[in-house]
Amino acid sequence: MLAGDRLSLARLLTRVENDSPEGRAALVELFPYTGKAHLIGVTGAPGTGKSSLVNQLALHYRRQADQRVAIVAVDPSSPFTGGAVLGDRVRMRDLSGDPQVFIRSMASRGSLGGLAQATAGMVQVFDAAGFDVILIETVGAGQSEVDIARLAHTTLVVEAPGLGDDIQAIKAGILEIADILVINKADRPGVENTERALKSTLELAHPAQRIFLHHGQVMEVKSGDLRSAQGDISTMWIPPIQKTVSTEGRGIPELVEAIARHAEHLRQSGDWVARERARLEVELEMLIQEALLARFREDVPAQKVQQVIEQMVKRDLSPWEAVKSLMNGRSK
Amino acid sequence: MLAGDRLSLARLLTRVENDSPEGRAALVELFPYTGKAHLIGVTGAPGTGKSSLVNQLALHYRRQADQRVAIVAVDPSSPFTGGAVLGDRVRMRDLSGDPQVFIRSMASRGSLGGLAQATAGMVQVFDAAGFDVILIETVGAGQSEVDIARLAHTTLVVEAPGLGDDIQAIKAGILEIADILVINKADRPGVENTERALKSTLELAHPAQRIFLHHGQVMEVKSGDLRSAQGDISTMWIPPIQKTVSTEGRGIPELVEAIARHAEHLRQSGDWVARERARLEVELEMLIQEALLARFREDVPAQKVQQVIEQMVKRDLSPWEAVKSLMNGRSK
Repeated sequence: MLAGDRLSLARLLTRVENDSPEGRAALVELFPYTGKAHLIGVTGAPGTGKSSLVNQLALHYRRQADQRVAIVAVDPSSPFTGGAVLGDRVRMRDLSGDPQVFIRSMASRGSLGGLAQATAGMVQVFDAAGFDVILIETVGAGQSEVDIARLAHTTLVVEAPGLGDDIQAIKAGILEIADILVINKADRPGVENTERALKSTLELAHPAQRIFLHHGQVMEVKSGDLRSAQGDISTMWIPPIQKTVSTEGRGIPELVEAIARHAEHLRQSGDWVARERARLEVELEMLIQEALLARFREDVPAQKVQQVIEQMVKRDLSPWEAVKSLMNGRSK
Repeated sequence: MLAGDRLSLARLLTRVENDSPEGRAALVELFPYTGKAHLIGVTGAPGTGKSSLVNQLALHYRRQADQRVAIVAVDPSSPFTGGAVLGDRVRMRDLSGDPQVFIRSMASRGSLGGLAQATAGMVQVFDAAGFDVILIETVGAGQSEVDIARLAHTTLVVEAPGLGDDIQAIKAGILEIADILVINKADRPGVENTERALKSTLELAHPAQRIFLHHGQVMEVKSGDLRSAQGDISTMWIPPIQKTVSTEGRGIPELVEAIARHAEHLRQSGDWVARERARLEVELEMLIQEALLARFREDVPAQKVQQVIEQMVKRDLSPWEAVKSLMNGRSK
């Protein structure tokens, strides 16, 4: 796989996704080779055209910069069916046949933690395999996407005009993870409203930039200009708003430029290492939780757990008492 | 609180939400009083008008059946700000002043597991306090909503016409948790498309009902009629599609009727107890995970964890090796 063999890569990805012992062993061995790729998260509500945007980004990185591109498309909204991820067909049409592009879709399987963990594993494999850019696409705007976004160096939050009335209010949370805001489908009516709403939410999330909003031009300030013009906030990154029409490729070069500026900012400010550390901390915590639960299941017989649940159903034992009884039984 | 004192109830809810020792002790004591309320989950994408629908349901239960109603509104999409939940103001206008209604909003705080667990605790308090109907409202359509929906006996999935083009494809997962499908804002253009899309997704999720779709009338078949007409699938519940215009109260009595039919179905089929058991199992697992992690944090010094993370950042230690080293350090 390290020599660039696609079949080995595909096999290893499956093992990592299935969390098999071979997959785990491989991750241990590959870990020293990781840490080079630029991980780009792309998230946003349904209907924003994320998949098509991710395709365009991949095409651009291939054609303009000859970079090796991996796409991990994650759909946490389908926990039961494990069905196909959106946009797969479009993707195949545009990108298939290029040996320097690798696409992998994942639907949730069981626990959310499991999904974030599997994604982290896949990203490590692509990173070790020498892919320069890894695009992590998630559907939706909930906690799951936030968890997955934490894996990325640069997170794009994608919006589109006219997606319902109370969406604006919801964005506050997801905006706080955005490094770059993308208004896709920017040829649609209502794009000014979307932009205005984003600007005001952004102002709430980044109160420091109110100074600039007084001058009425903050969103036009490039991070580079900002750095030179404003001494004291030179290390601050204000998420720019980029407008795209991904179906036509409009705005993609500018978006790629903004992503590059963000990577540059991360490196200069020391945030690249800080994010790396935060990412590894989150991953460690996920793995510890899993290991603890696995050990618990080994120590406590399933039968004992069932007995306790029966007592709970009869209201003879409260959930807290049940935990206490199971945890004590274990340390014996 | 058991005597109906609102102030005690409010205080206890805060303690349970904050996961304080007093809150936990109270949950243990209150547990024998739980298991009577009908827990109704209401979930769906932003823009569907869920909050207004929940209000109308609450009003209906108050006015038509004189039932005590609690509303727990959960917003998992705002993990950082912990801001106010949507629709609070509308809610206050319609329902405030009625002592038999209690409304509680929650935004995510830190971990998702924490949110589902806090919601479970709040629901137990309301249940013990003698509320007949507990409406659990969640925003969005991701894994978090699924987890919270698992708390309910009856889950309503709310849709609305014209919420973007690729939403239809996303629904498959969330549909599988739906006991009743609601098309709200049914006076809007595109309602026929939404209904058609729901019917075909439903057909995929419940292949057994294809027989009825051949007769072209499955969605019109009431579960009661189905039970008498079809011997072999008499215990099967096919999610009905209910159309509402919640701003005008249209379709609410029919929706309440469908909810009652579902409760009746759960009781007759034995699913009520089965769901109760599944619910308690999930809750037990959440609490066990938390207890295991708490014990781990007691056993392993934070300094040791930081050392291990530094080694990971330097690529000297893979995440899997880090877990092994920390777990072994612990059992010493």
